[in-house]
Amino acid sequence: MKTVIDKLTALREAMRREGVVAYIVPGTDPHASEYMAPHWAEMTWISGFLGESGTAVITLDKALLWTDSRYYLQAEAELQGSTFVLMRESDVDCPSIPKWLCDNLSEGRVGVNAEMYSVNSYDKLRKELEDGGLLLHSADLIAPLWTEGRPAIPDSILYEYEEKYAGESVAAKLVRVREAMAERRADALIIAELDEIGWLLNIRGKDVDYTPCLISYVVVEKERCTIFVAPEKLDDKARAYLSRIGVETRDYTAIYDYLRCIHATCVMFDGARVNQALYEAVNPAVKRKVNATPSPVQVMMSVKNEVEIAGERRAMLTDAVALTRFFIWLEKEALKTSQTEITLADKLQDFRRQGKNYTDDSFCTIAGWKGNGAIVHYHATPEACAKIEGEGVLLLDSGGQYLDGTTDITRTVWIGDAAAIPAAVKEDFTLVLKGHIALAQARFPRGTRGNQLDVLAHQYMWAKGITYGHGTGHGVGHFMGCHEGPANIRTDNNTNPIKLGNIFSDEPGIYRTGEYGIRTENLVVTKKVDAPQSRTTGEDYYEFETLTLCFYDTRLIAREMLTDDERAWLNAYHARVYKEVSPLLSADEAAWLKQKCAAL
Amino acid sequence: MKTVIDKLTALREAMRREGVVAYIVPGTDPHASEYMAPHWAEMTWISGFLGESGTAVITLDKALLWTDSRYYLQAEAELQGSTFVLMRESDVDCPSIPKWLCDNLSEGRVGVNAEMYSVNSYDKLRKELEDGGLLLHSADLIAPLWTEGRPAIPDSILYEYEEKYAGESVAAKLVRVREAMAERRADALIIAELDEIGWLLNIRGKDVDYTPCLISYVVVEKERCTIFVAPEKLDDKARAYLSRIGVETRDYTAIYDYLRCIHATCVMFDGARVNQALYEAVNPAVKRKVNATPSPVQVMMSVKNEVEIAGERRAMLTDAVALTRFFIWLEKEALKTSQTEITLADKLQDFRRQGKNYTDDSFCTIAGWKGNGAIVHYHATPEACAKIEGEGVLLLDSGGQYLDGTTDITRTVWIGDAAAIPAAVKEDFTLVLKGHIALAQARFPRGTRGNQLDVLAHQYMWAKGITYGHGTGHGVGHFMGCHEGPANIRTDNNTNPIKLGNIFSDEPGIYRTGEYGIRTENLVVTKKVDAPQSRTTGEDYYEFETLTLCFYDTRLIAREMLTDDERAWLNAYHARVYKEVSPLLSADEAAWLKQKCAAL
Repeated sequence: MKTVIDKLTALREAMRREGVVAYIVPGTDPHASEYMAPHWAEMTWISGFLGESGTAVITLDKALLWTDSRYYLQAEAELQGSTFVLMRESDVDCPSIPKWLCDNLSEGRVGVNAEMYSVNSYDKLRKELEDGGLLLHSADLIAPLWTEGRPAIPDSILYEYEEKYAGESVAAKLVRVREAMAERRADALIIAELDEIGWLLNIRGKDVDYTPCLISYVVVEKERCTIFVAPEKLDDKARAYLSRIGVETRDYTAIYDYLRCIHATCVMFDGARVNQALYEAVNPAVKRKVNATPSPVQVMMSVKNEVEIAGERRAMLTDAVALTRFFIWLEKEALKTSQTEITLADKLQDFRRQGKNYTDDSFCTIAGWKGNGAIVHYHATPEACAKIEGEGVLLLDSGGQYLDGTTDITRTVWIGDAAAIPAAVKEDFTLVLKGHIALAQARFPRGTRGNQLDVLAHQYMWAKGITYGHGTGHGVGHFMGCHEGPANIRTDNNTNPIKLGNIFSDEPGIYRTGEYGIRTENLVVTKKVDAPQSRTTGEDYYEFETLTLCFYDTRLIAREMLTDDERAWLNAYHARVYKEVSPLLSADEAAWLKQKCAAL
Repeated sequence: MKTVIDKLTALREAMRREGVVAYIVPGTDPHASEYMAPHWAEMTWISGFLGESGTAVITLDKALLWTDSRYYLQAEAELQGSTFVLMRESDVDCPSIPKWLCDNLSEGRVGVNAEMYSVNSYDKLRKELEDGGLLLHSADLIAPLWTEGRPAIPDSILYEYEEKYAGESVAAKLVRVREAMAERRADALIIAELDEIGWLLNIRGKDVDYTPCLISYVVVEKERCTIFVAPEKLDDKARAYLSRIGVETRDYTAIYDYLRCIHATCVMFDGARVNQALYEAVNPAVKRKVNATPSPVQVMMSVKNEVEIAGERRAMLTDAVALTRFFIWLEKEALKTSQTEITLADKLQDFRRQGKNYTDDSFCTIAGWKGNGAIVHYHATPEACAKIEGEGVLLLDSGGQYLDGTTDITRTVWIGDAAAIPAAVKEDFTLVLKGHIALAQARFPRGTRGNQLDVLAHQYMWAKGITYGHGTGHGVGHFMGCHEGPANIRTDNNTNPIKLGNIFSDEPGIYRTGEYGIRTENLVVTKKVDAPQSRTTGEDYYEFETLTLCFYDTRLIAREMLTDDERAWLNAYHARVYKEVSPLLSADEAAWLKQKCAAL
């Protein structure tokens, strides 16, 4: 079964046997992961489409693939000859999948692999289909077909993430989690999301790129905590560690049987992160099921403790040294030789690798030269990547995973003679910077949500009719996912308040198609305002402290657009960057940085 | 049955007969009204508590009344000797009603009058009670007891609200509503909220103070529209009008039987505004019920058409003349005589009454002298109202109902010698003004929600650790409710985007307990940004245009706290106020206003 046509024929046979009129294959995994192991790439297997985001829908006589505008060109190319029709989901007139199904099928069952759907997304799909007279049906029809050449589930070894980095013992975390369960009168909690598992058990692995997670499930009960993990992922050290923290081990796939027989009166789960197959497996004798979105673990994990914040500060210093050396190289050496977006990214990784406790990048570096910088999720490929030639704007979004913490930074720099910087570029850069500073300076009462603060970053560009198509700030994990919830800073609705210890990115941008992209990104941590300046109402007020320590390219600033207050912030930041980073540099490097950090 | 004790005894007998262990009496009516007719004051009848907000809970051996901190003192006094225990719901340790019931009753049924609960609040209560092992049960136990002295349902006469004011025919509105129903595949729509009914049928009444609404229900079907209204509310003119617009009439209480027999496959309703009794009445043969919160009618009503906006501008001019004359009187005449908060409010109403098309105030004027201004929902009573003596801050929040539109304005003024204004008062006034101006100047893309913009009004005071305990902006009806949804500008979560034609208040404030209250409020209308100033992304951008036309007391401004941009906004506003209002004033009045509008 080599071609998509063959696969579709086989799938349709299976669909007829199962009695389903359509089958949906989403690009997801059983753990609601951001970075998916190839084992679960069912959408790619059935369609041939290699993009990171897409959903295939197969009926008895049609095959369709939904994806967003980032992937239109790629999908058109990759779907050629497959009979798959591309559904351009970013277009306003593109029907949603349930709408299309309801409009095109009069009745019958629609099949999905319940492992690939969160309880919440399954439920939403079910309701939408039922509204149109269709029924949703759980059945894994791909696994029996995809037998040859299916990549195995990754087999990296579980290792302990030491308490000196994590800042809290597993025992203490379990006490807090069980308290949260008791509050909801739950005596069992299912955890499927890998970052949560890593946080709760102070474990890490190397199962996927960029995030040091380990494929497993966890069930916490009143007196017991069990990890479901393939035995080959446990060496003696791992077994000894799990035994030391009192966590029982069972095989990865044993969770279904475990849930089928679980003795509990109330099972709690995060419906956005626990898959429908786990939910369906739960013993029907369990009286209550509490869908807690976000899960208490996710909320706790997002609140960094003092040890984690101290570690993050160390990681930021290490990262700043790598970035400074990279930018020195970029200015002094790089352009003497032939460079591309990819060689720049590789070089930056080389500098990061020299840092203490570096393990990996925290995501695939985005180096966008000129017009490529305007493509928000741009990733250069060896086949198609720009040469850095002449003068222009370079956008560089990158980050590192250090045992001390996770970094994520974007700097936009001008390559070439500053005199050649167009006024429009300076205006855009400064609009972005003003928003970036306004958010960094925000003060707000406890209970404030990120979507309330987002306008601070958008306000100046909105006044000019400009916006950007991504969030302003995402949560950042601690030596874990570079993107985490539940709070964030976006225009989107999100009911989760910002909590003390939350770390966010602050990254507004402006993108000029075909011309350039500008984004400026720091990480900030949420802390209490120490000394309110006025007669207060007695509430708690929070503010952000910027963690990232890297200069901005001040040549790109239209100075007259900054207020005195903004300039004061900028100068204080640059003074701090120089003060903290320069002791870690050579004298020459420090002198170079001093220039970059000169007051404006 | 005269005393609360007698009433409780009788109610408990009824509870035993009905088999309920607790009975909840909320302070609501069947129409989700802001201003309730006395007929529905069941909470007050059973408890003796006259406050505007409260819920009584009666068990077989206890009686409790939940109310918020505004009413603690009043409730303590009014509940004396009643056996009712006051539950202070603004206190952090006060349990919610369902929590208290679940903690204090082990099992059984809890009764409520389903007419007094929206479908959504009933459902929420049911789930919370079930979580604690209790069942919710619908039963009206008060009506059979409250026979003597129960006020009748108001009997004002229905009248046509002419299209020259409403700007759209009923036929056109019904077409749009039926389109919205078809989108959700509904063939019947229940409307219970009185503002929605008034808007849809271009009718008004005088059933309650401040809002020109008429007590009734409406059911819209594909080919038919029926109003359920007491026959005594229809004179010949009203009947002729309803007949002309093709609306059938049935008695107010006939809606229950009508819904019991309705021929429809799908009934749509706004679960936040349609009561549970109506919902329960719907014919069980109806296949689908669509809970559309907010209802399409509410959304349409909030989008003011050009005729309504033009009317609102006229109302604002009329209102501005009344306000200007009042402030002239206040400065030149009032303090020669003895004045109180109440006499000031009365005098302001006198000035408004002289305005064309004035029918009523749009709410009970709040005149708060010194410390009383710090009580957000303060209302002076003849027994307890402050004399205006000496120097100090006066907060004045008022509005008018004009056939042309509804107004709502707050001005804070200094009474006495400006040299005596404390620096702290000026700082607070200016912090409020800066937020007020920032919101008035906001520009934002289509789809933005009010909770995204709220921070613009809060930002400067939050930076000082100050906030206020009310929303920043509410929607305003058109010759209808002074507070309307679904969009608003608050910190609270609200998924409804701001739409073109939405009118909001812009009213930040600072309150210093025992000292003074400062609030500055204008109404603004949402319109498209005409000429974006930059290369745009092609999205639609919206901005606010201020509608209110009344000077601010610039003596209260700390000029050095304003940016050039804020001063420019203020001066332009004052120039516009003078230009638009002065032609309607006498020469002397205009000269006085010119001074008040002098550039800063």
